Amino acid sequence: MPAPVTLAQIASRLGGRVVGDAQTLIRQVGSLERARPDQITFFTHSRYKARLAATRAGAVVLAAEAEALTALPRIVCENPYAYFARVSQILNPAEPSQPGVHSSAQVAASARIPASACVDAGAVIGGGVALGERVWIGPGCVIEERSVIGDDSRLYASVVVNRDCRIGARAILHSGVVIGADGFGIASDGGRWVKVPQIGRVVIGDDVEIGANTTIDRGAIDDTIVEDGVKLDNQIQIGHNCRIGAHTAMAGFSGVAGSTDIGMHCTIGAAAVILGHLKIVDHVHVSAGTVISRSIHKAGTYTGMFPFDENASWARNTALVRHLSDLARRLRDLEKRVLKGKENG
Amino acid sequence: MPAPVTLAQIASRLGGRVVGDAQTLIRQVGSLERARPDQITFFTHSRYKARLAATRAGAVVLAAEAEALTALPRIVCENPYAYFARVSQILNPAEPSQPGVHSSAQVAASARIPASACVDAGAVIGGGVALGERVWIGPGCVIEERSVIGDDSRLYASVVVNRDCRIGARAILHSGVVIGADGFGIASDGGRWVKVPQIGRVVIGDDVEIGANTTIDRGAIDDTIVEDGVKLDNQIQIGHNCRIGAHTAMAGFSGVAGSTDIGMHCTIGAAAVILGHLKIVDHVHVSAGTVISRSIHKAGTYTGMFPFDENASWARNTALVRHLSDLARRLRDLEKRVLKGKENG
Amino acid sequence: MPAPVTLAQIASRLGGRVVGDAQTLIRQVGSLERARPDQITFFTHSRYKARLAATRAGAVVLAAEAEALTALPRIVCENPYAYFARVSQILNPAEPSQPGVHSSAQVAASARIPASACVDAGAVIGGGVALGERVWIGPGCVIEERSVIGDDSRLYASVVVNRDCRIGARAILHSGVVIGADGFGIASDGGRWVKVPQIGRVVIGDDVEIGANTTIDRGAIDDTIVEDGVKLDNQIQIGHNCRIGAHTAMAGFSGVAGSTDIGMHCTIGAAAVILGHLKIVDHVHVSAGTVISRSIHKAGTYTGMFPFDENASWARNTALVRHLSDLARRLRDLEKRVLKGKENG
Repeated sequence: MPAPVTLAQIASRLGGRVVGDAQTLIRQVGSLERARPDQITFFTHSRYKARLAATRAGAVVLAAEAEALTALPRIVCENPYAYFARVSQILNPAEPSQPGVHSSAQVAASARIPASACVDAGAVIGGGVALGERVWIGPGCVIEERSVIGDDSRLYASVVVNRDCRIGARAILHSGVVIGADGFGIASDGGRWVKVPQIGRVVIGDDVEIGANTTIDRGAIDDTIVEDGVKLDNQIQIGHNCRIGAHTAMAGFSGVAGSTDIGMHCTIGAAAVILGHLKIVDHVHVSAGTVISRSIHKAGTYTGMFPFDENASWARNTALVRHLSDLARRLRDLEKRVLKGKENG
Repeated sequence: MPAPVTLAQIASRLGGRVVGDAQTLIRQVGSLERARPDQITFFTHSRYKARLAATRAGAVVLAAEAEALTALPRIVCENPYAYFARVSQILNPAEPSQPGVHSSAQVAASARIPASACVDAGAVIGGGVALGERVWIGPGCVIEERSVIGDDSRLYASVVVNRDCRIGARAILHSGVVIGADGFGIASDGGRWVKVPQIGRVVIGDDVEIGANTTIDRGAIDDTIVEDGVKLDNQIQIGHNCRIGAHTAMAGFSGVAGSTDIGMHCTIGAAAVILGHLKIVDHVHVSAGTVISRSIHKAGTYTGMFPFDENASWARNTALVRHLSDLARRLRDLEKRVLKGKENG
Repeated sequence: MPAPVTLAQIASRLGGRVVGDAQTLIRQVGSLERARPDQITFFTHSRYKARLAATRAGAVVLAAEAEALTALPRIVCENPYAYFARVSQILNPAEPSQPGVHSSAQVAASARIPASACVDAGAVIGGGVALGERVWIGPGCVIEERSVIGDDSRLYASVVVNRDCRIGARAILHSGVVIGADGFGIASDGGRWVKVPQIGRVVIGDDVEIGANTTIDRGAIDDTIVEDGVKLDNQIQIGHNCRIGAHTAMAGFSGVAGSTDIGMHCTIGAAAVILGHLKIVDHVHVSAGTVISRSIHKAGTYTGMFPFDENASWARNTALVRHLSDLARRLRDLEKRVLKGKENG
């Protein structure tokens, strides 16, 4: 448990303006609904006004335009959610690892493990692997030959990094992540499939977080690239030879097929799929449940989600999707007839 | 191999009415197509009448209305499939574990492991963990600090339970499940992402089964809740701060984004996705392949699946989806013109 | 690093016709964009003509119709991509395993491990397991009781094969694969779910490759079958009692619900889902993002992908999908009116 802090102390570290008792003592963050009097919460959406009015939190982070909505001690700032994230980081610092190699870990003689690094129980570190300072390799992880992991990175339990991959500094890889498995490279030959050896690597920048059970395949020939600051949720699949541009974020279940290039500062919604060999420019936002089947050359938001409905309505309307070209033809015929009728009349 | 049982013995345990030779000896369950004479099968759908007529099974479980469809020894009951499930449970009892901690397992000194529990090869149990009676932790599992697992739960090989999570009694967690990884909490700040520490837990009730490679994230602030009797198939993603109501079942690949509340007795079809911050009431059924983008306030079945077609037809019809508002406008114009024409005529 | 080869040596092993200097020395394969002068690349699509013109590769594999597009030394053949795959296999032979059982592996006394097999650090091999010649079990894999794995198969780190499963020769299973977890068999009974024991196996043929974190469930009663030459990408789910026909390939995130029978030589696109209890004949191609909800009795390509659009257009058009039956009714009314008007006129 970290030491409690006052609103004044928070503001002196993170900026913002304290309104009300600056000596209010905060021990933890809390949600509007469940925060206790020694906790600080945040307010960003006007639809939660009633919750703000009812909150038992000791203090609130909010924007200037919401300042008057509560009488609680508060910190007024420009980006309350990011501010709140930083308050939570102060109150919940990352757990420090215990430097050292567990007696049950298997570390190849040629691996470089600095004294500040932690290799947990049952982890396996291959020949030529290089870990950075303070790297924490969780229990049961496997880091294969010659892979490199940057300073202050943390791999939770049961992560696999295949041979020759590179991961930057301050990475967070959650359990079940697989980096550098073979891409899906198969050539059809007379009804059989011939495997294309996957000789590229996965190269991951700094400050990347990768969610549980996400997979990023190694390149077929050239490398698969994940740039600095990319954030990937759980159960994502990144195909071989993709590039994910810096500071792009992808929600759970989204996927990118092989050789697609996604720009910087994009957001990809849950369960969205981007097909292969496409180019998506910077600042593109793909909505959840959307399949992107062509390159996108213009920043903006793109959507292709089938609207759900009560099952009976859906069935009635959807049957017509398969007859849209008939409908269009009949409309065209009718237009001709009516216009002709008019001309004739 | 369990001892064989007669139809009379089955009915005395499970109820139902035996028709035909009640001393028919049953050694195992079988499918209509492949059951042998010492096996019992079940019949629930009239479309399988031909298979029932051809089956070589020794006995059949069926409903009263189907009783006359076969001359085989049979058990007549109200819910043949559930009855059959229970017959199979009698004939195929769960494999008993061998109590004890394997010599290669790593168990923290402060963990509480009852003598009846089994901790398999290579498993890692963190400090403060508490296992219930007869819990079976499979090979390579990692249970992190202070997590609690209820009586008679079984974790198959390579399950990860992160710190501070709670799992009830009689849980079944299949291989590759990850409980309690960080939720996807990131705040945008000037084009960079700031991590929101995920300090909630995952709290799972009793009698929950979770399929292979499914992930359930810990809460951002409050907990992620999975209630009693929930059944999750493989490769499912449950986002942070969700609640999955009691006795809800979700099929493979389905997902729930963060902070969504799903009611009790719901069924979610394969590859269905429920977006974040929604409320789904009890007894809602979501069809496969559907994206739920708004809260559902009324019990019922909801669907949003794009109908597939031969590729050429699909292309022809689907092109028009992107011009539906044009079509509607042209129809409106035509209606005006025709009605006006009529008025003028 | 394998020894370099000349074009003449390649052609003598794989066929094809060398044009230009047959003594050109090749050390590795490369992409059109990044190949170096000691590398060979391939050309298959006319849209990459500019890249071919600019390539710095030392040689190119291409088809006769493209022969004149470059002056580089080249090999002309019928199927350049499959040919290139085989060249890459020559230059990048699979890494040989080091026979033997690692001291940290846990192998049951009754398991049969030939001297040519490799069992890596921390792997766990259950009683009655039988490994073929030269099988390579990666670090942290778990092979449960009585499973059988054919000659020359390789399991990468952290694969789980549950009890009683069979995997053929030359299989490649990538990290995080789970074979033989319980299928999703639950029977509804008065609002509760009753588990149906899953007593079938998974039976996998020869020459099958399975991508990272893919799951294949064991059969409920009969077996789940994956035939020879099937290639599965990452994060795929195959439900219980499915059959995947020989030489079928499935792209990432695709899934097959229980008891579906997929024919031979099919291709299933990324994120496509095939619902349960269906029959798909041979030579069916399912496009990405498509949900197959009925059996397919005719070979061909089938699609059901919702077209994406800029968000505003999508919203405008998609709102009408939920009113298609209204539109159709209004069109019908108008047709009647206009035709009647004509008759009356």
